Order: sequence, then C-alpha cells, then structure tokens
Amino acid sequence: MTKERFSGVLAPVVTPFKKDLSPDTERFLNLCRWIVSQKANLAVFGTNSEANSLSVKEKINLLEKLLSSGISGDSLMPGTGCCSISETVELTKLAVSLGCRGVLMLPPFYYKGVTDEGLFNYFSEVIERVNHEHLSIYLYHIPPISQIPLSSTLVNQLVSKYPEVVAGIKDSSGDWNQTESFHKLNLPNFRIFCGSESFLLKNMQAGGAGCISATANVNPLAINELFKNWAHPDAELQQSRVNKIRNIFQRYPMIPALKEAIALHSRDKEWSRVRAPLIPISKNQSDALRDELKAASFVMDELFDTQ
Amino acid sequence: MTKERFSGVLAPVVTPFKKDLSPDTERFLNLCRWIVSQKANLAVFGTNSEANSLSVKEKINLLEKLLSSGISGDSLMPGTGCCSISETVELTKLAVSLGCRGVLMLPPFYYKGVTDEGLFNYFSEVIERVNHEHLSIYLYHIPPISQIPLSSTLVNQLVSKYPEVVAGIKDSSGDWNQTESFHKLNLPNFRIFCGSESFLLKNMQAGGAGCISATANVNPLAINELFKNWAHPDAELQQSRVNKIRNIFQRYPMIPALKEAIALHSRDKEWSRVRAPLIPISKNQSDALRDELKAASFVMDELFDTQ
Repeated sequence: MTKERFSGVLAPVVTPFKKDLSPDTERFLNLCRWIVSQKANLAVFGTNSEANSLSVKEKINLLEKLLSSGISGDSLMPGTGCCSISETVELTKLAVSLGCRGVLMLPPFYYKGVTDEGLFNYFSEVIERVNHEHLSIYLYHIPPISQIPLSSTLVNQLVSKYPEVVAGIKDSSGDWNQTESFHKLNLPNFRIFCGSESFLLKNMQAGGAGCISATANVNPLAINELFKNWAHPDAELQQSRVNKIRNIFQRYPMIPALKEAIALHSRDKEWSRVRAPLIPISKNQSDALRDELKAASFVMDELFDTQ
Repeated sequence: MTKERFSGVLAPVVTPFKKDLSPDTERFLNLCRWIVSQKANLAVFGTNSEANSLSVKEKINLLEKLLSSGISGDSLMPGTGCCSISETVELTKLAVSLGCRGVLMLPPFYYKGVTDEGLFNYFSEVIERVNHEHLSIYLYHIPPISQIPLSSTLVNQLVSKYPEVVAGIKDSSGDWNQTESFHKLNLPNFRIFCGSESFLLKNMQAGGAGCISATANVNPLAINELFKNWAHPDAELQQSRVNKIRNIFQRYPMIPALKEAIALHSRDKEWSRVRAPLIPISKNQSDALRDELKAASFVMDELFDTQ
C-alpha cells in the first residue's frame, strides 16, 4: 500500500548556490525547515528549484542530506523526471527507498513532437523498473517549459493501468480550461494541483487537491490559509490577497526574484545567486521588488532567518 | 595548442540498445568502425544518437569503450552539452582527457526564453571549468528541438572571447538564411557545418567546413564524395543523388528509420530498438522504407555486417 496522497500547498523549493555554484546544503535545509514550519510541503527539484540545472549526483546528494537532517519523507515530493529512463529510474528509486511520500515527474523533454504512445511507454518503463509498492507519481504538466504536453487521454491511460501508482498531476499550463479537462476525467482519488495559487480557489471548488506554486517559497502561510478556508465565506478575499503578492513576483523573472526576496529579507546576498543560463535580477529590479513588496504590506520579516 | 579543426562529414551515430534497453556496446562499436571505414567521422551522442535518452554514466561508459577499442580520438566529436553546467563539464573534461578532437555542445535546453547573457555565462563557465589547452567546442544550433537558438551575436561574442576554444558550429535550423548569417560573421578558421547534406554544396560554396548529418549513418561514402568534389563540375549531380536518399528518410521518423535501415541490411532486428519516448517504425513503414530504398538503388549491402 502506498501512503496517503498529498493535498494542500507545496513549494518547489529554490536551490541556493555557493560562490563556486555548488548547491548550498545548509541554506537549502534552512529554507526547507522554514517552509515546513509554515505548513507547506516540499516539492524540491522542481522547475523553480533550477533542478534541471543540477546534475543527478547533486540531486542525490541533496535528497540524502534532506532526509538525514530530519526532514520527514512525508513532506517530500521531489522532482525526479529526467530526459533518460535510466536517470529517472535512479532518482525515483532513491526517493522511494528514502521514504518520500511521492515524486513529481516531468516527461522526457528533449525530443519534441513525441506521441502519447511514446510517453506512455516511457512512464510505464519507469514504473515497471522502480517496481516498489510505495511508489506514488504525480505527473508534471508544464508545456510552456517542457514543450511536452500530457494529454487527457494519456493521463487516463496511465491511471487506468497504474491506479495505485499514478496519484495525481500538477498542471502548470497556466490555462484553467486545461486543469478543468483533467477534472473532467473524474479519476477516483486523483490529486489535481494547480501550478499557481491564482487558481487555488477555483481548483478546490472543482474538487482539486491544492497547489504547488513558486510563491509558496515566500508566502506559504497565506496560501495555506486559503487552502484551509476555501469553503469559507471570505475565501474570495483571501484569494485576492494571495494574488496581490503573486502578481508582484510575476512582474519579474520568477526564479531570481524569489531568491532575491529571500536575500532581501535575510540580509544574505548569498541567496541571490542563480546558475546559468538564468541571470540574477539587477540592482534596479531588486530595489523595485523590495518597494513593491513593502507597499503590499508583505511581511518579509516573518521569513526565516538564514544566518 | 588545440588539434586541427574538423572538416568533412560526420555521423551523429545512432545508439543500439539491448533487449533490456541498455546501450549495446558491441553493435555500437561495429557501426562506428564501419562509418570510419567509409570516410566519415563520429559525432557520437548527437540528437540522432538518442543521446538525451542516455544517462551521463551511460555516455561516459560508451566513450571510454570507444577509445579503448582503438577508435581514434581524432575521429571523435562527442555531444557533451547537458542541461546542467556540472554534467556538461564532467562529460567535456572526460572527452578532452581521452583525446577527442572536439566536442559538440548543446545549450542548456530546459529553461526557455533565456537571454544571450545567460547562455554566454553558461558556455564561459563550462570553458573556464574544463580549462584544457586541447578543448575545442563546436556549438550546436538546433532550435526546432532544443528550442534555444544561438544568436549570431552570441556566437560572435563567444568566439571573440575564446578564439582558440570555440572552433565551429553545427547549424541544424534547417534554414539556409540562418547558416548564411553565421557565414556573414566572417570568423577566421571558424568551422560551419550544416545539419543536413541537402545544404552541403551550398555550405561548401559559402566557405563551410562540411556537414554533420543523420543520414551519414547509412550513406556516408556518397556524402563524403560530394564533400570532396564540391568544386567539381558534376557536384550538382552528386548533390541531387544524396538528396534522393535523404528525402526518402525524411518521409519517416528519422531516428527509428535509420535504425530500421541498418536492421534491414544486416538482417539484425536488434537494431530496430529505440528508447521511449521514441517508438519504432511499424512493419508497414519498414516495408515501405525497404522498397523505397531499393527503388532508389540504395546499396544497403555495402553497409557493415553486424553479425
């Protein structure tokens, strides 16, 4: 039997880098602990984590450190989807064996225009090779970046063949009609997460499970409040409050802006660093971001202290 | 001092897989030896090699086997570009230390809409970290698949900063205007390869260095003849002959069709296998391919014997 499926708010945790660009384990663990304390779970190695700018070895190392530092596997949904079956299997096996409650799986994203049959074969091959009773996969639909959409037909086929394993989906299409089409499949106990809290209320009203959102790195508590209170009369108000913060970040390149917000709060410039091909935001952008967040009464002082 | 730069015809060698989908080293070495005997060099780990469906470990293993089997590093331009700086550096360091004459380098291809500055930082970081006097990089421009174009400005900046290292480019845009724009940079001793022999004569007339083409896996000798005789009066005729074969393969999904052609010739079905997300061509397609190649007098019997 697999563990209870995820619901609620998950943060695709941003990955801090040292001066030599190696992952900064201490700062990473601090951020993870803070996010958990703010009632969100950890979708480490997501798009916002610059996971595809990390080597497989670096991900293995970070995952082992996370678990051995006392972070519970119940909080963890690491991204394990690589371009090759071999690497996806290696990472997924490790995640399951370390006790992670689930994994978030990108489709292979180099070859374009691939067929549903090819993608079905890929996911099947991974599932058969990992072959573990605790394997729980959340599919990762993010066509603006992966350029590999997961069709409703494919999702339906995978859940039909592997109902115990294929537990849910994260929809980062940014298109509510797409999320709705996953809901319309009416798959039992299938957990649908939206990729932004902007759709959280809508997603919960449609029977969704929560959201896995970039800004849960910096605003997890408020997003979690909306998740808990979605059926409450003032949910619309809460939705508009979290939107206000989300909209600020969306005016900047998201990943460097998240890191900059953490750097600003913690007075720790180390957090600003990104790996190429990304570039950090400029001094002007940083100042503007700080001012916008302040004007929105975004309480950065409640963020964790990395020192 | 780096070695003499590449010119001529290179094959992005297709990678055979065993039943358990592991790379089939023996068949791979046989194909590499045959291609070299047919006067082409080896751009192993290219797009047509399903390189991005291989793990870094599998690539390391195959590269070591190639060199230890007696294939000369002078023939080798392995693809070493991954999404992460760490893995690109690891593979590139290995290739240089094993004596490969050059490497073909994809840009990082997960994050989309990245800037020239970000890509420049990425390639610079790789070059500085590999830090080897024999490092010779051929940039890999293949926007239809990578979705990350390399602008002329970026190419110019990289060559200006690293004139000894950035040795050339493979243009797989499929757009002659694009190839021309690289020629117009007039970079000294910069080797421009087209990604298909369809543009070979044009590329040579413009001062290009050759081609790195999928169909050099099955038709290397004829493509090499065109390369050698491009200034000869009957070059147009030779171009139309190689086009005829190229056009047949282009009517099928390229990678499985190349493998199927090898399987058909060598009466060795093992060659048909591909890794998901690709799918093998159907029996009907295989029959049609065989008939088309026969009608075009394509002499498959001259292909190597894998038995």
